[in-house]
Amino acid sequence: MRGVVMHTAGDVRVEERADPKIIEPTDAVIALAATCICGSDLWPYRGVEPADHQAMGHEYMGVVEEVGADVKTVKPGDFVVGSFVISDNTCEICQAGFQSKCVHAEFVAQIGTQAEKARIPHADGTLVKTPGTPDPELYPALLAASDVLGTGWFAAVAAEAGPGKTVAVVGDGAVGLMAILAAKQLGAERIIAMSRHPERQKLARYYGATDVVEERGEEGVAKIKELTSGLGAHSVVEAVGTQESFMQAVGATRGGGHLGYVGVNYDVKIPGIELFFAGIHTLGGPAPVRRFLPDLIDRIWSGEIDPGKVFDLTLPLEEAPEGYRAMDERRATKVLLTL
Amino acid sequence: MRGVVMHTAGDVRVEERADPKIIEPTDAVIALAATCICGSDLWPYRGVEPADHQAMGHEYMGVVEEVGADVKTVKPGDFVVGSFVISDNTCEICQAGFQSKCVHAEFVAQIGTQAEKARIPHADGTLVKTPGTPDPELYPALLAASDVLGTGWFAAVAAEAGPGKTVAVVGDGAVGLMAILAAKQLGAERIIAMSRHPERQKLARYYGATDVVEERGEEGVAKIKELTSGLGAHSVVEAVGTQESFMQAVGATRGGGHLGYVGVNYDVKIPGIELFFAGIHTLGGPAPVRRFLPDLIDRIWSGEIDPGKVFDLTLPLEEAPEGYRAMDERRATKVLLTL
Repeated sequence: MRGVVMHTAGDVRVEERADPKIIEPTDAVIALAATCICGSDLWPYRGVEPADHQAMGHEYMGVVEEVGADVKTVKPGDFVVGSFVISDNTCEICQAGFQSKCVHAEFVAQIGTQAEKARIPHADGTLVKTPGTPDPELYPALLAASDVLGTGWFAAVAAEAGPGKTVAVVGDGAVGLMAILAAKQLGAERIIAMSRHPERQKLARYYGATDVVEERGEEGVAKIKELTSGLGAHSVVEAVGTQESFMQAVGATRGGGHLGYVGVNYDVKIPGIELFFAGIHTLGGPAPVRRFLPDLIDRIWSGEIDPGKVFDLTLPLEEAPEGYRAMDERRATKVLLTL
Repeated sequence: MRGVVMHTAGDVRVEERADPKIIEPTDAVIALAATCICGSDLWPYRGVEPADHQAMGHEYMGVVEEVGADVKTVKPGDFVVGSFVISDNTCEICQAGFQSKCVHAEFVAQIGTQAEKARIPHADGTLVKTPGTPDPELYPALLAASDVLGTGWFAAVAAEAGPGKTVAVVGDGAVGLMAILAAKQLGAERIIAMSRHPERQKLARYYGATDVVEERGEEGVAKIKELTSGLGAHSVVEAVGTQESFMQAVGATRGGGHLGYVGVNYDVKIPGIELFFAGIHTLGGPAPVRRFLPDLIDRIWSGEIDPGKVFDLTLPLEEAPEGYRAMDERRATKVLLTL
């Protein structure tokens, strides 16, 4: 089959990879209907993380081709969306809603779903069947659920966005935009997008932002305080992952408020004393997308939400290298790859 | 009046200080019935924080002598216990239960309650009246409520200790011991004290610890995992505040679990990526003791809890310098000063 392989930083190629096969009785093999490039794929692309002939991709959806003997909830022909982390969905951690920390957790990034097919371990605990075979126009929205929507949603839930709350979202990338969508769906009263890009500000407002703050760092914090009677936001989502953005998010959260964060760079060092005197709740980590998938698929299927607009470039899988370039050069927020 | 003043690191004296007076109409002046030395008083004593002729002490209880014109809930003659942070208890942050982040928050450490008297601002929002004048045998327990009990209690609440939960407590100082007491009261199923001192292990078991782990750092984490089917504790309290103990606490918390922390040294730097991949909730900061004070006083008054045992040395105020030495040399866990 054809698949994306990163030979080394900046060198992405589409080439022949071995067809996946069922190995464990809990596996499924799916034929991808679409896949995409994640902001986190830029880390190895930019040399921030090592890359050595690595199969790429962790977002996916498609049609089940084959299942192992123990798979019960999906069968060949079913259309499925899966989380970017494998989970059994039965262990104590999964049952508590933290499937990304499942005792059988495994990152799909190790599998590489920017490809025609993929083997998905623990299919019953990882994949969720859609109500039917979707129209291709639903592909972007459903694919977003696999990571960016699920991650933004988790961030908003972690920040306890809800009725009566003021939510500040640091970052206007795909995840930040999805956190805005989620905060809106969760009933937040006011949603402040921290964004400097006119196009993304527009999308932020489309998804539910009521205010836009362009300032960053301490100025950004001061602006959030100004908008919240000096107190700070009840709920803050950190969706950038740098030292500056993380501390901006800490500073923007009111005492006793909630900070949800869904990605940090390897060099972020949080000064303990600043976090301490902030007096805030935090929850972060790879998002337990599987917890939210059934609900998110329902909301997409019913037309209640349209997360697909985060994709602003669509290319065939064979042109994945151009997709990486476009995202690296910030010509695109998020690239969908068709099959 | 007589009061404790730290001239410089290691140089603590009891000397004459000006008698406090009502300044604001929301003030009260109290005559201390007892006060004590906190582990955090050792920071300036050891030169970790600056000290320059600083009045010391932030734990207190006693009899109201005089109140300002606007004070409504306490009157001269009332016996009161107060939090180590001043709060109005009416602002939005206080109403959300985070009185230590009150818009009028002020650290009582700036006032110095190791003295015969003290002016307490925002008396209505800071002080809580006891049901009557306590017997002196209740003094240690009530005084503990002013900080160490309230702080340990907050840590256990922040860690979401409760029925069915396994709680690990990192640190066997006064706050750690109080967190054990709190976890027990909150109904935790299993309470693991991380302690190396035989005397404190004994007290930990007295307050409710079901297990003791002597290992620290990665070995300590491995031991907690071993005791929890490889998952980690649901709830972890960090009550030491060093880099090692903080990361031990992070490592001991299961994915999706809760870490409560109530003190960190100035040099603690939390690696963002480790916190991220831990996938845990955290809540920390100066404890909003005022939230818990009415309940804690009730529990002490009814004999339900006896936090007073954390004091293992009692000295008259005039001998405060010996109290500092005893704590610095670890001859005492916590020193009560009588008046």
